[in-house]
Amino acid sequence: MNKNIDIIPEEVANCPIYKTMEIFQGKWNAWILFELGRNETMRFGELRKAIPNISNTVLTTTLRDLEERGLVNRIQFNEIPPHVEYSATESAKDLKEVFSAMWVWGEKHVKD
Amino acid sequence: MNKNIDIIPEEVANCPIYKTMEIFQGKWNAWILFELGRNETMRFGELRKAIPNISNTVLTTTLRDLEERGLVNRIQFNEIPPHVEYSATESAKDLKEVFSAMWVWGEKHVKD
Repeated sequence: MNKNIDIIPEEVANCPIYKTMEIFQGKWNAWILFELGRNETMRFGELRKAIPNISNTVLTTTLRDLEERGLVNRIQFNEIPPHVEYSATESAKDLKEVFSAMWVWGEKHVKD
Repeated sequence: MNKNIDIIPEEVANCPIYKTMEIFQGKWNAWILFELGRNETMRFGELRKAIPNISNTVLTTTLRDLEERGLVNRIQFNEIPPHVEYSATESAKDLKEVFSAMWVWGEKHVKD
């Protein structure tokens, strides 16, 4: 039997650190959460402007993924004209501690 | 001109948070850094045991990648029998603040 498999074992998958890491795996997940964390609400176009070079498709799918994970609120306003606003959920707002620790480490240790 | 490209712009790539995130992008990077962070030194076999299901190849390439990033020390002991010991560099040890923030967030917010 070849035991050289490379899957995530249960004891890893259940670890709080791993679970947190998972939400940062997409290329733009962290960036979107960071932008929503420092703004009350944002429209799609504002997010696109805040994250240069992200495509409409990627922004749409990433927002949907984050919505499913309970990190992003999507509120549709049926006014004229109708519009949608995105915001960070309470749990996403709590990520600021993680971002802050990452900022400190990156500033101190990563060379250009 | 189609502007719907999806590359990392310079202002993102230079951000300390992004730089920190980058070192966690490999599936096992964080896990290896976490294990080395809580042990003085580890041999290859000990790392394999600590990270169930990781393959020899993946462990080897990930360790080399982390070594190149200045996060892992690899010390070869030319004794009989010769052996190699891996340890976290000072900058990798500082990641404990990031791990700690991730642990707190994961425990509080991620449902099973």
